[in-house]
Amino acid sequence: MAKIVMLGSGIMATALSFPSSENGHEVRLVGTHLDRDIIDSIKAKGIHPDLGLKVNDGVKVYQLEDAEEAFADADVVMCGVNSFGLEWAGEQLAGLLKPGQDVLCITKGMRADEDGTMHVLPEVLKKAVGPELASQVSWSAIVGPSIAGELAVHHDTCVVFCGEDQEVLTKLADMFRTDYYHVWTSTDFIGHETGAATKNIYAFAAGFGDGLLDKEGKTDAKYVRFNYGAAVFAQGQKELRQFVQLLGGEAVTADGLGGVGDMFVTSMGGRNVKAGRYVGSGVPFSEVRDSLMKGVTLEGVAAIQVIGAALKPLTERGVIKEDDFPLCRYLYSVVAEDAPLEMPWSLFFGGER
Amino acid sequence: MAKIVMLGSGIMATALSFPSSENGHEVRLVGTHLDRDIIDSIKAKGIHPDLGLKVNDGVKVYQLEDAEEAFADADVVMCGVNSFGLEWAGEQLAGLLKPGQDVLCITKGMRADEDGTMHVLPEVLKKAVGPELASQVSWSAIVGPSIAGELAVHHDTCVVFCGEDQEVLTKLADMFRTDYYHVWTSTDFIGHETGAATKNIYAFAAGFGDGLLDKEGKTDAKYVRFNYGAAVFAQGQKELRQFVQLLGGEAVTADGLGGVGDMFVTSMGGRNVKAGRYVGSGVPFSEVRDSLMKGVTLEGVAAIQVIGAALKPLTERGVIKEDDFPLCRYLYSVVAEDAPLEMPWSLFFGGER
Repeated sequence: MAKIVMLGSGIMATALSFPSSENGHEVRLVGTHLDRDIIDSIKAKGIHPDLGLKVNDGVKVYQLEDAEEAFADADVVMCGVNSFGLEWAGEQLAGLLKPGQDVLCITKGMRADEDGTMHVLPEVLKKAVGPELASQVSWSAIVGPSIAGELAVHHDTCVVFCGEDQEVLTKLADMFRTDYYHVWTSTDFIGHETGAATKNIYAFAAGFGDGLLDKEGKTDAKYVRFNYGAAVFAQGQKELRQFVQLLGGEAVTADGLGGVGDMFVTSMGGRNVKAGRYVGSGVPFSEVRDSLMKGVTLEGVAAIQVIGAALKPLTERGVIKEDDFPLCRYLYSVVAEDAPLEMPWSLFFGGER
Repeated sequence: MAKIVMLGSGIMATALSFPSSENGHEVRLVGTHLDRDIIDSIKAKGIHPDLGLKVNDGVKVYQLEDAEEAFADADVVMCGVNSFGLEWAGEQLAGLLKPGQDVLCITKGMRADEDGTMHVLPEVLKKAVGPELASQVSWSAIVGPSIAGELAVHHDTCVVFCGEDQEVLTKLADMFRTDYYHVWTSTDFIGHETGAATKNIYAFAAGFGDGLLDKEGKTDAKYVRFNYGAAVFAQGQKELRQFVQLLGGEAVTADGLGGVGDMFVTSMGGRNVKAGRYVGSGVPFSEVRDSLMKGVTLEGVAAIQVIGAALKPLTERGVIKEDDFPLCRYLYSVVAEDAPLEMPWSLFFGGER
């Protein structure tokens, strides 16, 4: 049986403790400095406060100061912080990782250089831990449509373990696979990580339709705006595929669990959709950010800011064309410049004609 | 200004009278023998009873016995019956169509020969009117995510006019395009019609997740089954793409409004989803068909019956492989053999591994 340590005890990391601990593995949740209350709650009552669920017996929890002990003899090291904590997590892992360990990331997102060159998060982590240590461990990630709470209550969930080494992926998948947690593997690491990061962009836009209904006083009307949402979804899928290819992934990855599947689940609700709904109802994004949803983690908005900004230098350098990514460009104007909701339909799908 | 006649006055045909009449065209709705009350209602009160909306002033309505008058000098002939009425519509059109008219289909569905060879609906219509008349008119269709009532109340709707002749498509698109009805054109007629027909298959499966929640008494629970729905959606998209290619369409069509977009909107609700939800809750399909939803038009179930049955001879003939279309094959066992809900997850995405 393996020892699995998770850096971060948020809802997704904790949800993953269910299938892995039920397979007999020893699971250790290490809270970050922001997770102190979570760890206290699990220690005292066994309950994860944000999930609202009892963690399985046998799952061990650690405050951050005890991380060294939790990491020392672990076989698998999971990075479960959100994308805003990635640089912090990199610093921690630089001190905690041991040669021979298998790293499995659940953090999603993207970083970009000034010239628009984009990097998926495992690359950022590798850089943070340094080339020597990075080469002494293996790197993999989990992607796919997986709402944490649904997994935690054992509702069927289908995901992809993606990474560089098929043997490692097969081993990791076996550790987590159960009759409700269905796991596929893929060595298209870049493609899957790109899909996982960019799908959040389009979840923000998925809220616009309901926001428009709110604005029009039609929230409970007979005819809503599914046509609107479907067109946004289709254009989003088109752009997601192009991002996957732009970063060097396989186009087919955009079709699967880590592409269209993940975009579907993310569009069904959550914080990004809620923020988009406010914008749809007529609230400038700056007001959503600074007031209505102040302090709320918005991975989709973060992705729009990083990736949307990268599109400008990429276009100037001729890497992409001016009419590529019209929806992502428009969403960037919404979050960076408070552009009002005026969907550029005619630019979608290669231009209305 | 053009004269546009619609055979069938159901909700979709009538919804299309809004953008076209607002563009100044003369629109004529001809009811089928099943639409008698609809036509009477519009004549008496201007209201389409199923849409619950007033039809635009100037839209003319006809009972079936007056069809000849409505068709005589029309420029565009639309076929707006449902797929069950297609053979009937073909017979009508054989007597009503005039050389030089442009046919625009909104009916969706598929027919198959005994050896599994599948035919999209415009082909079936062409055959019904005979080769001579078929060659004297043009053939096009409207596909894409378009809930009729949403279009009728002027909510943004994005569609594709697909057909054989780009010039005709450009002309037809111009007749219908407004600031809320956004129209693209494509000459991938087969691909788009295949997407439009097969997306209904997966809408049936889109109801399973909620049905499972009903069965488990979790209908209003905090954690639902979006992960389940997303995995079904992703596998559906994969199969839809393969169907498009199998029939000779372009793979890229599966990405757009007529593929993933239409599948998204169809998965959001409607009769097929409702039927799937009953199955998810544990009701054998035969009971849904013969009792709970007796007499209700289920285009998705019809598609499963036609296409699911065709997979067997296609497999025997080596046209497709045994592990192709696992979700469609499973859904066929549900509607044809009352198979219980037991999703074959491990067969999806090329096989769990």
